[in-house]
Amino acid sequence: MSLPSWQTLGQAKCQAILNAIPEKWRLEHPLPPDEELRDVTGDYIRQFLTQREIEITEKDAVDIVAQTSTGRWSALEVTEAFCHRAALAHQFVNCLHEVFFESAIEAAKEQDAYFATHNTPKGPLHGLPISLKDQFHIKDVETTMGYVGWINTFEGKPIDPNTTKKESELVRELRALGAILYCKTSVPATLMAGETVNNIIGYTWNPKNRLLSSGGSSGGEGALIALRGSPAGFGTDIGGSVRIPAGFNGIYGLRPSAGRIPYQGAANSLDGQGCILSVVGPMAATARSLTLLVKAVLGMQPWTRDPLALELPWREEVVEQTRGLIERARSGSSDSVLAFGLMKYDGIDRVHPPIARGMRIVEQTLQRLGHKIIEWKPPSHRTAVEIFAKVFDMDGGADAKHHFGLSGEPRPEQIIGSQSGIQMTASEIAALNVAKREYQKQYLDYWQSTAELTGTGRPVDGLFCPLAAHAAVFPYEYKSVAYTAFVNVLDYTSLAIPVTFADQNVDVDPADSSDRRHLDYYAEIYDGAPVGVQLVGRRLQEEKMLTLAEYLGDEIARDVKEGPRELGFCVYCYGYHVTVEGDARAKCRAYKT
Amino acid sequence: MSLPSWQTLGQAKCQAILNAIPEKWRLEHPLPPDEELRDVTGDYIRQFLTQREIEITEKDAVDIVAQTSTGRWSALEVTEAFCHRAALAHQFVNCLHEVFFESAIEAAKEQDAYFATHNTPKGPLHGLPISLKDQFHIKDVETTMGYVGWINTFEGKPIDPNTTKKESELVRELRALGAILYCKTSVPATLMAGETVNNIIGYTWNPKNRLLSSGGSSGGEGALIALRGSPAGFGTDIGGSVRIPAGFNGIYGLRPSAGRIPYQGAANSLDGQGCILSVVGPMAATARSLTLLVKAVLGMQPWTRDPLALELPWREEVVEQTRGLIERARSGSSDSVLAFGLMKYDGIDRVHPPIARGMRIVEQTLQRLGHKIIEWKPPSHRTAVEIFAKVFDMDGGADAKHHFGLSGEPRPEQIIGSQSGIQMTASEIAALNVAKREYQKQYLDYWQSTAELTGTGRPVDGLFCPLAAHAAVFPYEYKSVAYTAFVNVLDYTSLAIPVTFADQNVDVDPADSSDRRHLDYYAEIYDGAPVGVQLVGRRLQEEKMLTLAEYLGDEIARDVKEGPRELGFCVYCYGYHVTVEGDARAKCRAYKT
Repeated sequence: MSLPSWQTLGQAKCQAILNAIPEKWRLEHPLPPDEELRDVTGDYIRQFLTQREIEITEKDAVDIVAQTSTGRWSALEVTEAFCHRAALAHQFVNCLHEVFFESAIEAAKEQDAYFATHNTPKGPLHGLPISLKDQFHIKDVETTMGYVGWINTFEGKPIDPNTTKKESELVRELRALGAILYCKTSVPATLMAGETVNNIIGYTWNPKNRLLSSGGSSGGEGALIALRGSPAGFGTDIGGSVRIPAGFNGIYGLRPSAGRIPYQGAANSLDGQGCILSVVGPMAATARSLTLLVKAVLGMQPWTRDPLALELPWREEVVEQTRGLIERARSGSSDSVLAFGLMKYDGIDRVHPPIARGMRIVEQTLQRLGHKIIEWKPPSHRTAVEIFAKVFDMDGGADAKHHFGLSGEPRPEQIIGSQSGIQMTASEIAALNVAKREYQKQYLDYWQSTAELTGTGRPVDGLFCPLAAHAAVFPYEYKSVAYTAFVNVLDYTSLAIPVTFADQNVDVDPADSSDRRHLDYYAEIYDGAPVGVQLVGRRLQEEKMLTLAEYLGDEIARDVKEGPRELGFCVYCYGYHVTVEGDARAKCRAYKT
Repeated sequence: MSLPSWQTLGQAKCQAILNAIPEKWRLEHPLPPDEELRDVTGDYIRQFLTQREIEITEKDAVDIVAQTSTGRWSALEVTEAFCHRAALAHQFVNCLHEVFFESAIEAAKEQDAYFATHNTPKGPLHGLPISLKDQFHIKDVETTMGYVGWINTFEGKPIDPNTTKKESELVRELRALGAILYCKTSVPATLMAGETVNNIIGYTWNPKNRLLSSGGSSGGEGALIALRGSPAGFGTDIGGSVRIPAGFNGIYGLRPSAGRIPYQGAANSLDGQGCILSVVGPMAATARSLTLLVKAVLGMQPWTRDPLALELPWREEVVEQTRGLIERARSGSSDSVLAFGLMKYDGIDRVHPPIARGMRIVEQTLQRLGHKIIEWKPPSHRTAVEIFAKVFDMDGGADAKHHFGLSGEPRPEQIIGSQSGIQMTASEIAALNVAKREYQKQYLDYWQSTAELTGTGRPVDGLFCPLAAHAAVFPYEYKSVAYTAFVNVLDYTSLAIPVTFADQNVDVDPADSSDRRHLDYYAEIYDGAPVGVQLVGRRLQEEKMLTLAEYLGDEIARDVKEGPRELGFCVYCYGYHVTVEGDARAKCRAYKT
C-alpha cells in the first residue's frame, strides 16, 4: 500500500533538507537514543568541530562582528563554521526547514571582496550569520512554515515568479546591513503551539535534554542558537513564540512592541488578524547581541518600507539614562535607584520547582543589588488569557483548516486554537477590542500606580515573572500560554532571560498537598532543562529593557555561577543581603565605616 | 395628537441647551432668513459684542495664552468673552450640544486666584477656553453624541455614578494644562456624515453662508471656531471629520496619525472597530494654535494614561530641521529645498470651480516660493475608498441601529454606512486588513519613490490635494469622502488649510462638456463658501506638517490677499513666476545681476 500523498511529499522535503547538507558534514552514525544521550550541547557537539570552528561559533554576535568588521576574521570562515555547526544541530534535533549554505558562502565571499576593496565593513552586521524562522521569504528559497501543502508553492498558492523573487523587508535590511543568511528554522505548522512539530521535519527536540521540547513556535531558532549553530536569529511572537523557545533553550529573546521590527512581506498565520499583532523579535545567546540586532535594523528606517513600522529610531538617550541609573545603583546609593515588580505566580498556573527556584534566584540577585522589589498585584491575568483565547479562536479555525487541507495532512495535536468553524462577527470582534483596551487601561493604571511604592519617583522599571509554569516540557505537555500571552494582549516589551537548569536533586516537588502543581512534574525527566524568566517593560520600552537585561542577566548569571547564597538580616539598612562569611554588613549599601 | 417620545425628548434637550445660555446673551429677535443673511461672521456677529470682547475673541490661541499666562488678561475676562460669543454662535447656526458656562467661569476664577498666588500660569494653556466635540466626557455634563437615546444616560446605558464622574483622558489633560472647558459642540448622530444633523439640535449651518452645511462630523467645532466663539477645539476624524468641517469653515484642522492624541475614555461610534482608527485632532483659526495644542497635550505624556497612545513626545528637533529648510528656501537657494506633490484630481470626483481655483492658488504660491512641484500619480484612490467603505459597513449597521433604536428616532438620511444587517466575519475582516496593508505598502513605496524626482534628496515633503470636490455643500449634497478618507486608510498626517472663498463672479462652471463635474455646481448658492485644501504628510509627521502648514498657510494667505497674480516665463530659470510689473526676473531665484 502506498503512503498518502502528503506523507510522501513531507518525507521528500525532509530528505531534501538533509540532502542540502554537504556530505562532509553528515553524521556517520545515528545519535544514541535520547534516553542515553540527553544533552547534545557543549562537549558533545564540539567533538565534531575543529578548535577554530569552536572558537568562532562560541563567540556571541557582538564579538563576531568585532572580528569580521575589522577584517580579523573573514566572513567566509565565520559562515562556514556556522554552516557546519548548524548542519550538526539539525541532525541532532531537527531544527532546520531550509538549508542554503552555498549561496551563504557566495555572499560571504562577496563581503570579503568588499572589505578587501574598501577596507571597511559593508554594514553593522558585516559577515554575521543570521538564522531566520521559516516565515521570512528569501529569494530562491522555499517557505513552508511547516505546512506540507506549501511545498512547491508560494504560501500555498501556485508559484508566481513575481512573488517568489520578493524578499521580506527584514531580509532586505539584513543583507544591506552585511548579515549572511544561510538557513531557515523549524516551526509548528500554524505557528500556534508551544512545541515545534510538523509533518515535514517531525519534532524539534531540546538540545539540553532531548526528551523535551525546544518550545515553540520559534523552536528551531531556540534549539539552533542553543547549540551555537547560529549566533543570532529572528523569530516571531504572538503569544510567547520568541520567549518560550528562548526560555526553553537557555538563551535570550526579545518580544518588542508591535511596529518596531518590520514584519512586511513575511508569511504568517491568521494574516490580517488585527487584534493582537504577531511581532518579529531577535533571539541570541547574549542580551547585547539582541541590542546589536535591534539597533542595526532600526538604523535601516524600516518605517520607510513597512507601513506598519513606527518611525521610532533607536533611542540611545534612553540607553544612557538607564545606564546612568545602573551606575548610580552600583556606586552604592543608599536610595532605591531601580525597582522591579516580582510575580512568582499569576493566579492561574502554579509553577514547577525549577521555575520557583529560578524566580528565587532572581529575587536574591535583585536584593543583593539593593533594588526595590514590589510584589506584583495586577489586574487578573485570567482576563488577559480569555481575551487572548478569543483572538486565537476568532476565525473558528478556518485559516488553519484551509492550509492543512491543501495537502490533506493531519493537524498535530499540539496546535492551539478553535476548530469550531464558528467565525466571530464584526460586532463581536469590536467588543473584544474594547475589552482588550479596557484591560490594557487597567494594567497601565496599575503599572503607573507603583510609582507610589518604588521610592524612585518612577513606576517599576520592569516586572520579573516566569515564562511558563515549567521549564522545557516533554511532548504534549505545553498547555498554557498564560505567563507569556498577557504581554501580547498588553503589547508590552518583554525579554526571556536565562537563569539556571532544572536539577532533579534540588528541584523536588514538595509533598505538601497545599502546594499541589496544576501540571505534572517529574524531577528526573526535567533534569537539565533550561530555566528562564521574563523581564517585562511597558509598551515600546525596547531600549530600556535591553539595557536592563544586559545588566541583570549578567548579575543573575554571576549569582548562579557562584552558587547558592544565604541572605542575612542587616542591622544597618534593615534589609536582607547575601552574607559574606556571615557578615551581611559587608554588602550593605548603607554601611559606612 | 402627541409627538412621538423621541421628538419630545429631543426638543426638550434642544430647549435645555438654549436655556443654559444666560438671559443677557439671548437674541432679542430671530435672525433674518438665511436667503437674506448668509454670512453671520465678521461684522454681523461683532454688533452683539463689546469692543473688548471683539479684541479678545479675535486673537488666536497663541496670542491669548501670551496674555493670560503673563497676567495681562484674566482668565475670567477671556472666558466670559468666549462664552458670550459661543452663545451667539449657537443661536446663529446651532453648533452646541452642551453649555456649561457657569462651571467654566468658576474654573477661570480659580485660575486667576492661582496666578495671583503663584504669579505663574497653571500650565501652557493657562486660561485658554477650549471647545470639545460632543464625544468627550466631562464631569456633570451630558454626552449625547447627537443621539436622542443617549439623553439622560451614559452612552445609552443607565447612568452609573462611577462612570458619569469619569472624564475622558484628554479632558483631564486639558484641565491640568490650564485650559477652560465651557461647551461641547454638535455632531451628526453616529459621527458618520459630512454634514452635522441630528434629532436634537437639527442642522448646524455654515456661518459664512447659512444656506450651506458646516461639514461633519466635527461640524459644530468648525462653525463655532469660524465664528470665533472658540479659539481652538478638538474634533475627531475617521474619514475626514476634522478636515472637512475645517475646510468648510475656513479654519485649520489636523488629522494626526493614530496614537498621538489620547482617545481614551471618549465616546465613539463602532467602538472597537480596529481596522481604521478614529483619531482626535485639534481645530483652530491658525496653524500655530494647532501646534500649541498638540505640543501641550504631548507634554502630558498621554501614553502613561492611554494604552493606545504612542510614547512619542513632541519632537522639537523636527520642527527645527523643517524651519531650517524653510529658511534655506527663503534665503534664495537656487536648488530645490522643499518639494510637494500636487494632486488636483483624484480620478474619482471632479472638483468644482472654487476648489480648482483654490488648488491653482496653492500651485502658484509654491511656484512663487521656488518649491519643486511633483505631479502626483499615486496608486488608485479607488482602492482606498473601497477599503474605507468596507470598514464603515463592517457591522451591517448594527451599532447605529442599536443607538437610534434606543429612542426610536429616525436615522438622518445623510448618515453614511450600511444598513444591510450583514456582519463581516473574522476571516473577511482579516482579508480586508491584508488588502489595507498592501495598499499602504504601495502608497508608501510610491511616496518614497518621489525622492528620484524632487531634487532635494528626499521624497516630497508633503502632498497638496483638495479636501472634497466642493466647498461647503448645501444639505444632502455631501456624497463622497474620497479626498479625505484615503488619508485615514493610510494613517497619514493631514491638515486642512484655508485658502479662499467661492466667488460666483470668478468660479463659473465651464460650459465645455468635456469637463463636466460629477456633482452639481451652482455658482450663486456656493458664493462665499470657504475653500480649503489639504496638506498630507506620511505617517506620524505631525511636527513637520504643522511647521510646513504655518509657513505655507501664511504664504497662501498673502497671495490671496494680494489678489490674483499672473505668471510670467522667466528666461533665467526657465520656470514660471509671479510677475512684478511684468518682469518675471525680479522674482527669480536664479537671477543674479
